[in-house]
Amino acid sequence: MRVAELSTPALVVDLATLDHNIDSMAAVRPGQSLRAHVKAHKSTALAAYAAGRSGSNSFCAATLREVDGLIRAGLGHDVLLANETLDIGALERSVNLARESNARLTIAIDSPETLGVARVAAGNGPLEVLIDVNVGMPRCGIAPGETGALAESARQAGLSVRGVMGYEGHVVGNTDRAFRVEQVAASMELLRAAHEAVGGGIASAGGTGTFDLHHWADEVQAGSFLLMDTSYSALDLPFRQSATVLATVISVNRSDGYAVGDAGLKAFGMDHGEPTIIGHTMFFTSDEHVTFVPGVGHNVSVGDRIHMVPSHIDPTMAMHERVHVIESRNTDGTVPLDAEVIDTWPVDLRNW
Amino acid sequence: MRVAELSTPALVVDLATLDHNIDSMAAVRPGQSLRAHVKAHKSTALAAYAAGRSGSNSFCAATLREVDGLIRAGLGHDVLLANETLDIGALERSVNLARESNARLTIAIDSPETLGVARVAAGNGPLEVLIDVNVGMPRCGIAPGETGALAESARQAGLSVRGVMGYEGHVVGNTDRAFRVEQVAASMELLRAAHEAVGGGIASAGGTGTFDLHHWADEVQAGSFLLMDTSYSALDLPFRQSATVLATVISVNRSDGYAVGDAGLKAFGMDHGEPTIIGHTMFFTSDEHVTFVPGVGHNVSVGDRIHMVPSHIDPTMAMHERVHVIESRNTDGTVPLDAEVIDTWPVDLRNW
Repeated sequence: MRVAELSTPALVVDLATLDHNIDSMAAVRPGQSLRAHVKAHKSTALAAYAAGRSGSNSFCAATLREVDGLIRAGLGHDVLLANETLDIGALERSVNLARESNARLTIAIDSPETLGVARVAAGNGPLEVLIDVNVGMPRCGIAPGETGALAESARQAGLSVRGVMGYEGHVVGNTDRAFRVEQVAASMELLRAAHEAVGGGIASAGGTGTFDLHHWADEVQAGSFLLMDTSYSALDLPFRQSATVLATVISVNRSDGYAVGDAGLKAFGMDHGEPTIIGHTMFFTSDEHVTFVPGVGHNVSVGDRIHMVPSHIDPTMAMHERVHVIESRNTDGTVPLDAEVIDTWPVDLRNW
Repeated sequence: MRVAELSTPALVVDLATLDHNIDSMAAVRPGQSLRAHVKAHKSTALAAYAAGRSGSNSFCAATLREVDGLIRAGLGHDVLLANETLDIGALERSVNLARESNARLTIAIDSPETLGVARVAAGNGPLEVLIDVNVGMPRCGIAPGETGALAESARQAGLSVRGVMGYEGHVVGNTDRAFRVEQVAASMELLRAAHEAVGGGIASAGGTGTFDLHHWADEVQAGSFLLMDTSYSALDLPFRQSATVLATVISVNRSDGYAVGDAGLKAFGMDHGEPTIIGHTMFFTSDEHVTFVPGVGHNVSVGDRIHMVPSHIDPTMAMHERVHVIESRNTDGTVPLDAEVIDTWPVDLRNW
C-alpha cells in the first residue's frame, strides 16, 4: 500500500528519522543505561523495533496495561512500573503474568499504602520495588528524608528493594539548557542522598529533555525522543520529529481564504497547544476538523493531503489505533504520497 | 460489581441525570426534530438507550466509522454523515452496508469534488445527499449563493437531494443567550435562502447550545447534551453533567499540601482546558496523573477516589474504551462508591 491510499487521519512514522533518534540516544545512553519508556508511544511493535536496533531492552511503563503488554510481547527482560498503583487485583495479575513468563517486574512505591499493595500482590513470592523519590516535581515520590524508613519497611515485608527512582519532570521541558543542567544536578543531589539511605543497585531518573545531563544516575527513563513533537523540538536536542499525522483537505473556501482538513481534536493531544501544519497556518481545530490558512504559494484543493505535527506526542499516540511506517520522508518533513507503507504497528497499549 | 471495584481511570455515567437530559431535549425537540449526533459519545449502546427513551431515532455522524457502527447496531433508520468525505473506498463500503442492511444513508456534500465522490460511491444505485451550507462558521459548507447550482449538479449526477444542513458552530458555545438568538436567526436566514435554492424536504442545523433557538429548521443536530461538560454547563441550558471520570489517589504530599490522582492527559480532552475535580482544586495534569490541592476540610488519603468532570466531553469520550452506568449519583455530583454498576457500554465508534 502507498501512503496515498491510507484513509485519514493517519499517523505515519518515518523510519530514517526514527533510526536517527534511536542511534542518537544510544550514542549517549547505550544498553541498560536507557530504560525505554513506552508511555510515550504505547506500541509494543515500536518498542521491539527500537530495542532491536539499540540493544536497550529494559523498559518502563506508566500503567499496568503497558506492563502486561510488554511482557506478553516478549519484552519482559526488565520491566519497571515507574508509577504507583493501588489496584491490587490488577497488580496481582501482572505479578502472576511476569512469573509465568519468566519476566522481571519491578514496581515503584512511595508510601506505606503502595508498599502494602505490593506486598499483597506479591503473595508468598518475591517482588522487586524501587523507592520513588520526590526530587522536586510536585507529583509522586516520597520525601528524600523518609526513603530509608520506607525501604526498611519494604524489606521487612519481604520485598526486594532494587534502589531508587526520581523524575525531574519540572525540568525536562525547559528550553534553557543551563537551567536544566543546574536543576538536574540539584535533583540528583536529592536522589543520591536517598539512594544512600535506601541501598540497592539502581538509581533511575531523567527523561528525553535531560537524557545527556545525567552523569550519576544508572539509567535514564525516556520515550518521547523516538517520535518527538513541536514542544520537545523547541529544546536543543539531537532528536527530530519522526511522526506526522496525514489529513485530507475536505473543503476549501477560496473567497475567505481558508481550507479544512479531516483531523482534529480527536487526533491530537491538545494540552501543549495546537498541532502545526507543514507549509500552512493553523486557524483552529474542532472535533474532527482542522481549519487552516493555506501557505503563500500553496494552491490547496479538495482532496489534497496536509501534514500535521503534534505538539505533544504522548497523548497523541494514545488517540491512534496504529502507526504506519515509511522508509523516509521529504526534507521539509512532509510524507511522500507515493511512498510505500512498509509496516503498520498497532498502538496496542492504549487505555487502562 | 460496585463502583469501588472499578479500575481507574473509569468513566461513569449517571442514568438519572442522563434520563433528565434525554427528557429535557425531547420536550423541546421530540422525535425526528432531533437528529442525535453520535460524535459526542461514540457509543452505539448509549445511542440506542437514548433513542429508546426519546423516540428520536434519526442520527448523524462525523465519521464513516460512526455511520457503519450505527447501521451494524440496527440504528440505521435514518443516518446522516454530517461531514464531507473524500474517501471513495470507505464511502463505497458504507453505501453497500446501508443497502444490505436496508438502512437509510444520507451524506453531506459541499463541493463538486465531494459530489463526485458521492456519485462514484453510489455506483449505479441511489444515494441521498444534503447540501452543506456555510452559515457563518469558518469550516465546511458551500457559500449560500452557490447551493442551487451544486444541488442541480447533484441531481444531474443521479443523486437525490434531501435538502440542506448548516451548522452555526461559531454560536453554540457562546454564553450570551441573546447573542445566540440573534446569530441563530442570522445563520438561519442564510440556510433558508439556500433551502429555497436547493429544495428537498429537510433543513438540518444547530447543536446542543442552540437546541431551543431553532424555530424554522426541521431538525437539530445535537449530542453533547446527553453527557455535558464544564464548558457547556457555563451556558443557561437545562442539561446537567452526567459523566464523571473516577480516579484513585495514588500519592499524597502532606507537607507541601498536594495529592496525585491516576487520571491525566490521556483521559481528558484538553482543548477546552483542564478538567475539574469535585471538592478539590486542580493544580496540573500530566500524561497519567492529576496533581491537585485537596479542598478545605477534605483529609485526602492514598487509596481515596476523586471525581473529575471533563471540560469537553466529545474528545474525552474518544479516549475511553467504555462507560460504566450507575442508577444515580450524589447531589454534589460525586459517584457513590457503593453504587452498583448496572451496565457497561462500549465506546465502540472511536477512531477512523
